[in-house]
Amino acid sequence: MATKKRIHPVILAGGSGTRFWPLSREKKPKQLLPLASDKPLVADTAARLVGLSRLEDIVTVCGRAHAPAIRRMLPEEARGGVVVEPAARNTAPAIGLAATVVAARDPKGVLLVLPSDHAILDLQAFRETVQRAVDLAGRGSLVTIGVQPTRAETGFGYIQVGAPLAKGGGHRVTAFHEKPDRERAKGYLAAGGYLWNAGMFAFRADRILEELREHLPDCAAALAKIAPSVGTAGFARAVARHFPTCPSISIDYAVMEKAQDIAVVPASFTWSDLGSFSSLPEVREADAAGNVTSGNVMLFDALQNVVLGQGNKPVALIGVSDLIVVDAGDALLVCNRDRAQEVRKVVEALRARGDGKLL
Amino acid sequence: MATKKRIHPVILAGGSGTRFWPLSREKKPKQLLPLASDKPLVADTAARLVGLSRLEDIVTVCGRAHAPAIRRMLPEEARGGVVVEPAARNTAPAIGLAATVVAARDPKGVLLVLPSDHAILDLQAFRETVQRAVDLAGRGSLVTIGVQPTRAETGFGYIQVGAPLAKGGGHRVTAFHEKPDRERAKGYLAAGGYLWNAGMFAFRADRILEELREHLPDCAAALAKIAPSVGTAGFARAVARHFPTCPSISIDYAVMEKAQDIAVVPASFTWSDLGSFSSLPEVREADAAGNVTSGNVMLFDALQNVVLGQGNKPVALIGVSDLIVVDAGDALLVCNRDRAQEVRKVVEALRARGDGKLL
Repeated sequence: MATKKRIHPVILAGGSGTRFWPLSREKKPKQLLPLASDKPLVADTAARLVGLSRLEDIVTVCGRAHAPAIRRMLPEEARGGVVVEPAARNTAPAIGLAATVVAARDPKGVLLVLPSDHAILDLQAFRETVQRAVDLAGRGSLVTIGVQPTRAETGFGYIQVGAPLAKGGGHRVTAFHEKPDRERAKGYLAAGGYLWNAGMFAFRADRILEELREHLPDCAAALAKIAPSVGTAGFARAVARHFPTCPSISIDYAVMEKAQDIAVVPASFTWSDLGSFSSLPEVREADAAGNVTSGNVMLFDALQNVVLGQGNKPVALIGVSDLIVVDAGDALLVCNRDRAQEVRKVVEALRARGDGKLL
Repeated sequence: MATKKRIHPVILAGGSGTRFWPLSREKKPKQLLPLASDKPLVADTAARLVGLSRLEDIVTVCGRAHAPAIRRMLPEEARGGVVVEPAARNTAPAIGLAATVVAARDPKGVLLVLPSDHAILDLQAFRETVQRAVDLAGRGSLVTIGVQPTRAETGFGYIQVGAPLAKGGGHRVTAFHEKPDRERAKGYLAAGGYLWNAGMFAFRADRILEELREHLPDCAAALAKIAPSVGTAGFARAVARHFPTCPSISIDYAVMEKAQDIAVVPASFTWSDLGSFSSLPEVREADAAGNVTSGNVMLFDALQNVVLGQGNKPVALIGVSDLIVVDAGDALLVCNRDRAQEVRKVVEALRARGDGKLL
């Protein structure tokens, strides 16, 4: 067996969001919540890398407000790899910054880009998929990891799968498709040959920086000014000065949809983006009546509920079904399972009335 | 207009119960909860008497564990009238004890017996009904106040209404009927001429003590031993010694179903026994969508829910209907509105697992 390529994982932990209110807050976004296990998602993401890479090689990109919490949640070896974005600029600049950091120590090193707030079941399959993607990336391809669709989801982009590559189990990408409408999503599902774009990528540091120079020159210019300071005391100051000049744009729009030599590796693991409380049953074990619970939950004739209690406080459900019940201590949500996306309405209402401490 | 009879209200506040868990606890039974207004039910009950009687004349009978809280909840003038039962003996001995207290200062004084944990709407109608009952009682009758049934309720006793009395708007009672089965309850409702026994009575102190001597001699004997100590420092000790020897029995079984010269006055007010959280909409104003709420409740497409929040903690409901949601701070209930009686199952489960502090 050939020596495995050194992997430089890049955990994108800059997200904010309101779809898990009342658990998620501005100061505690989704990736800091223990949604898929009893550990925060960002900790799950790092833990998944044990055995794939050195934990010291993990680069975690996040916002200033969340950096202290994220450092605490990461394995000790990975804490030094936290890179703070002085301003949120979406995934292209964040990945570019990570690539700049990696390039300083391993110019042809392979980045494995992973969102910090998704759930992945089946660790062995994850490792196998990642290894295939990394091997392809080592040869110069920009590789995306695609997830087999299980429903006509309109919330994700789709990857149209092309001809198989000569070796490594990857395929060419025929096209990236933006989030489709319902009809189009059904068409993709029916046709087959389309995968969900799950935001997981592998590419060499030099390759992605090259693509950024071509497709996002303003960002590449800012990164070039930051590059000499990597590993020095001036790094944070350089980032603070130059990073905010990057345009705010996703890696998909900026690079993947435009670049040549894009490959896709189909994921062989179960994946969920954990889009809302409704998706927890995709990744957490339910009881015989279909209830997913955590905390001190007492169920009486209750079916298919998602119940997240607060510490040891009893939550009793009697004769109810398909509810989401979330007690966050200082706020309580009771929501129809089909309406979990509307949690943002609560956040908007709280914002409108200036109830800042609950946001 | 004739001088009105002095009324000696007797508030029966000895109840315990679990149907309002998680709000109600052993140390905080229903009558201590602000279920019908923003004040505890026992305070509502006393407030309803302003203008009908002197507050100093109110006798409130309750258990030792609840006496301090009840004293605090009563108007200052009524606090001296709290009589502590050393042991719960149901309503006949409690009323007998109150009658013994009243008889010491006004032997022919009229007791107006009122449960402490019911809701009454329309204060003016309450006063008119009570005045009629008291007037009848002053002439020696044992008077019960009956409530017009609005449903085939199986949880109450029924009073079969007889011929109208010559004056005062009362009727003879043909019979008391115990809690009926569903078919019988439907029959009563269809036939008309049946009223709910709501546990409200009026009778002179001497008359009810006379009836107790006839129908419940053991109790009457105990009361006779207590009587000389009323108003003295030895009262509490006498009660502690003799009251527990009384049999535990309701006034209905012990006296009303057996005595002669029973009259009934139909209530002209809206009444609810507040049997469970489901009954709150009977007495509390709902919003346009039928929701009854208290606290910081945020509703999004929510219909016909009963939501009792905790302080200022937001409770957000999205796309749900016919739920009871009660946050008691240290415990949370989410229950189908048709299943509110089953709250006792939670209490039983907590008891079974020895979770005493939540009982």
